Amino acid sequence: MSVKTIQVSQNVLHANRGIAENNRAALDAAGIVAVNLMASPGAGKTSLIERTIQGLEGRLRIGMINSDTSPAAMDAERAERAGAVTVHLNTAGRCHLDAGMVRDAMDFLPLHGIDILLIENIGNLVCPSSWQLGSHWNVLIASTPEGDDKPYKYPRIYSGVDALVINKTDLLPYVSFDLDYFTRGVEPLNQGLRTFPLSCRSGTGLDRWFDWIVSIAVPKTAMAL
Amino acid sequence: MSVKTIQVSQNVLHANRGIAENNRAALDAAGIVAVNLMASPGAGKTSLIERTIQGLEGRLRIGMINSDTSPAAMDAERAERAGAVTVHLNTAGRCHLDAGMVRDAMDFLPLHGIDILLIENIGNLVCPSSWQLGSHWNVLIASTPEGDDKPYKYPRIYSGVDALVINKTDLLPYVSFDLDYFTRGVEPLNQGLRTFPLSCRSGTGLDRWFDWIVSIAVPKTAMAL
Repeated sequence: MSVKTIQVSQNVLHANRGIAENNRAALDAAGIVAVNLMASPGAGKTSLIERTIQGLEGRLRIGMINSDTSPAAMDAERAERAGAVTVHLNTAGRCHLDAGMVRDAMDFLPLHGIDILLIENIGNLVCPSSWQLGSHWNVLIASTPEGDDKPYKYPRIYSGVDALVINKTDLLPYVSFDLDYFTRGVEPLNQGLRTFPLSCRSGTGLDRWFDWIVSIAVPKTAMAL
Repeated sequence: MSVKTIQVSQNVLHANRGIAENNRAALDAAGIVAVNLMASPGAGKTSLIERTIQGLEGRLRIGMINSDTSPAAMDAERAERAGAVTVHLNTAGRCHLDAGMVRDAMDFLPLHGIDILLIENIGNLVCPSSWQLGSHWNVLIASTPEGDDKPYKYPRIYSGVDALVINKTDLLPYVSFDLDYFTRGVEPLNQGLRTFPLSCRSGTGLDRWFDWIVSIAVPKTAMAL
């Protein structure tokens, strides 16, 4: 039974890859850089997106695809209020985004008015890592209250990302989080991974993150020159 | 493609249900009450299990099935050190336990020496809710730094559990967690759900949780009378 399931999953993953490649081509044609943001539930995906939209106002035009397993659209509303063009995806209980969902969401976005597309995946440290979306960058957001053992316990998602945010550094005095132990867990999985310790709550460390986002984006005004 | 996947999943879920029923029968025959503990990564499943083993030492004999997506057995080792008979399950990247995994783990446990079996699921707020294990009780562990919006965003897992632990109450002064808003989200999903606000770190609230665990267990000494 389980072997059969895996085969079907691999077919589905293969089909997904094709759609992801088409998404990437459509993004490139529109001059958009897409970032897939993955994390545990509550690590701070929405807070980081909100902060990023506010922090880059006037520098980059940001679009957002927000996802939930339910019709609750509160995160999308938070991003809209912060100033991003936002589409809310309800995965109807599914545990990750796939490329087809992103393709459908892109149909509702004014692609030519967006420089960078932030894709907020479902809060999950396992499933999203298997599904390409067509994004240019994969980012994992860890948070200090989750504990310093997560790279050891969820190695796959740590090994597949291009950047790592460590959020909620303001809670370090109150939680058991040994940054050295955490880093020693990440290093063999993803050597030299660019890492952004920060606090969305206090604002500490956000500037370095904003600078990186600016460095990966290609503003359309620059393209037109 | 996705319709086909769903059909296969339903076949697998149906087969899983049969194995779960067999697990339940084997547990009942051995006089064991099993508790399936679900949570986000880092909400405190292992800490709660550790505290429970220590808190009930001499009152109940506790067995534990611990799971990870990787070979890392550190949680199982923590539970062993705390005094429980423990089996570690490596799901090899899979995002939830299923009844077959629990059946296989049960083969390695001395069932007649255990009063209560704590099953630590993979850290995930989506997938575990679809898979029956044969446990008698399903418990969700939320944690305050995850935020108060999780019932609204992951409604399915909240609607299917028999008890809810709200861990890390010691962090309430430092995080944005409105207990009233959280509770208003839970209530329509699971009316009157028994809830245990507590802190594994400070120990506050643990006694009520221990009392509940004792109330659901049937110690074998009592059975023999």
